[in-house]
Amino acid sequence: MRISEIGEFGLIARIDKGCVNDPSTVVRGIGDDAAVLTVSPGRKLLVCSDMLVEDVHFMRGVAPWTCVGYKAVAVNLSDIAAMGAEPTSCVVSIALPPSATVDSVDGIYAGMKYLLAKYGVNLVGGDIVESSIFAIDVTMLGEASEEEIKYRDGARPGDVLMVTGDLGASAAGLQLLKSGLDCRAWTADSIPSIEEPIEPEDHRTAVIRAHFLPVPRMRESRALAELGTGSVTAMIDVSDGLASEIGHLCDQSGTGAWIAADAVPISEPTRAVAREAGLDPLNWALFGGEDYELLFTVSRGYVGEVVEAFAAAGLSGVAAIGEVTEPSLGRWVVMPGGRRMELTPGGYAHFREGSR
Amino acid sequence: MRISEIGEFGLIARIDKGCVNDPSTVVRGIGDDAAVLTVSPGRKLLVCSDMLVEDVHFMRGVAPWTCVGYKAVAVNLSDIAAMGAEPTSCVVSIALPPSATVDSVDGIYAGMKYLLAKYGVNLVGGDIVESSIFAIDVTMLGEASEEEIKYRDGARPGDVLMVTGDLGASAAGLQLLKSGLDCRAWTADSIPSIEEPIEPEDHRTAVIRAHFLPVPRMRESRALAELGTGSVTAMIDVSDGLASEIGHLCDQSGTGAWIAADAVPISEPTRAVAREAGLDPLNWALFGGEDYELLFTVSRGYVGEVVEAFAAAGLSGVAAIGEVTEPSLGRWVVMPGGRRMELTPGGYAHFREGSR
Repeated sequence: MRISEIGEFGLIARIDKGCVNDPSTVVRGIGDDAAVLTVSPGRKLLVCSDMLVEDVHFMRGVAPWTCVGYKAVAVNLSDIAAMGAEPTSCVVSIALPPSATVDSVDGIYAGMKYLLAKYGVNLVGGDIVESSIFAIDVTMLGEASEEEIKYRDGARPGDVLMVTGDLGASAAGLQLLKSGLDCRAWTADSIPSIEEPIEPEDHRTAVIRAHFLPVPRMRESRALAELGTGSVTAMIDVSDGLASEIGHLCDQSGTGAWIAADAVPISEPTRAVAREAGLDPLNWALFGGEDYELLFTVSRGYVGEVVEAFAAAGLSGVAAIGEVTEPSLGRWVVMPGGRRMELTPGGYAHFREGSR
Repeated sequence: MRISEIGEFGLIARIDKGCVNDPSTVVRGIGDDAAVLTVSPGRKLLVCSDMLVEDVHFMRGVAPWTCVGYKAVAVNLSDIAAMGAEPTSCVVSIALPPSATVDSVDGIYAGMKYLLAKYGVNLVGGDIVESSIFAIDVTMLGEASEEEIKYRDGARPGDVLMVTGDLGASAAGLQLLKSGLDCRAWTADSIPSIEEPIEPEDHRTAVIRAHFLPVPRMRESRALAELGTGSVTAMIDVSDGLASEIGHLCDQSGTGAWIAADAVPISEPTRAVAREAGLDPLNWALFGGEDYELLFTVSRGYVGEVVEAFAAAGLSGVAAIGEVTEPSLGRWVVMPGGRRMELTPGGYAHFREGSR
């Protein structure tokens, strides 16, 4: 069935169910000119927006629709996590070709609602418009107390650079997709599989999952926000590759930085895919992007506290990968053996001619 | 110059200026993973989103870029106004073809900033992505005290239906554009002209301006919000035509309604354009849409209070056009002479096959 058969209000009726996961903050959700929400007294309001566009961020027929919806929410949750805040509600504007199937729209919203329910976030409104291509814009709202919020500009020389999880897996997955790996069979039940363990030998499934279903680091963000104000000095999420994000942190904090190539966490599946392709996985970690790990700086002397907090809460790995320096020292990757490579943002830059 | 020559960060640097019109609520604006805002204690947070897409909501080369940006903000301000709330901040996600000119992007943001500055609203973040077509999604935040908020579902039988300004002018303007009127010369300095009076004989300019530069009824909304809680019982903005909006009010309030065709406010320029085209301007008023006037219901006995409040504040006209009835009585337009026409939503319905 095509969406032109059920119209805008038919679509809204399908979307309207299961949108409110935390009714305590929603005075009025979908259905009026605007949603009406409460914000906890004394807390700050956070807001961010990320848009996914067909043929740029996903390919029709390659990315399963549930994964497209999932990712549209995941990238926004990741931005809220990168501030040390808690997501509360979102609005979703979606542009759809009239020839789109109702199944495609159901899939997109199923993927969104899966992740929203997981973190108790409400879908309270948005817009549905006609278009020649699919585009999904999610605006996420969050809350935090002033002390919890982590900006990009707080890094100081001597701070330790740390990162959650591992890097480069999403780029490895993209590489497999670009080389023609057909993963449609795998992705038919992709959303349930996010909770399931992947067999160690199935490195392709692992990196495809990392690409299609990145896990926003909400619990890691909470653990960091709950540490004292002296420990984490700056934070950002890794959406455009480690090199680019370190660049943002240094630019805004007015610092330099170095990282040790050996210390950059790269998973076994990512390494296995790189071996098969004859590529260096460090390039994916530095320039690949879409990992949605948290990159943050920690005052020297507080690294142990961070590691212990993660271990105690059973969270994803966390690694110290380098150090913040005086700005005059520049930005470097130290390779095994001591050779230094200048760290320039080679991540995906929108619009730039000739970018990767 | 094309945007591919300056890249995403070059664009952000151009946009970043003049975004904060009310610094008192902005802890952190553009430049981090999310914006950080304050919400007044005891007030509710309002949020809405409206997306404009090329070839659906505007045509490249017909709509001047400043007008596209202006309208993207105006339609969202209108939604906040329709709730009786005050706009505070917005985030803007924009999808752009790499071949787009920097001038086009500058124009879009100039139009947005013009209107944001006029109402003291901040632009605090968003996203810029590559796309094959232009698309602009604005998410607007607002605030209101609980008593000020006007929902769609509060209309009761016996209430009087009222509307601000006049209806059908935007549809008249669209009709001129569709019939090939070239208004590019006029629109080169269109933004300043919104403040300027239009000569009575220039009815074409008047309706084109209504189409490209609709005035969101912010002051009218404030006046209504400041009346006692007993007077205005429900409110909505006229984005899809009067018939469609009356349908929404009646659906959500569980009522019927009738309006008198003679009482529907239609401006002289709209009538003049209709005469020249040999069309009935009432059709534009009922089914045209994009007027962004406020449609609201008033408890019988409070109509005088509304009219006086508008007159005292020097606001746009306001007209009583009909009455809310028991649901069993249906929805009707009473024509001059007493003939009744059933009021079915004939406004623009996205995706519906065969809809105009």
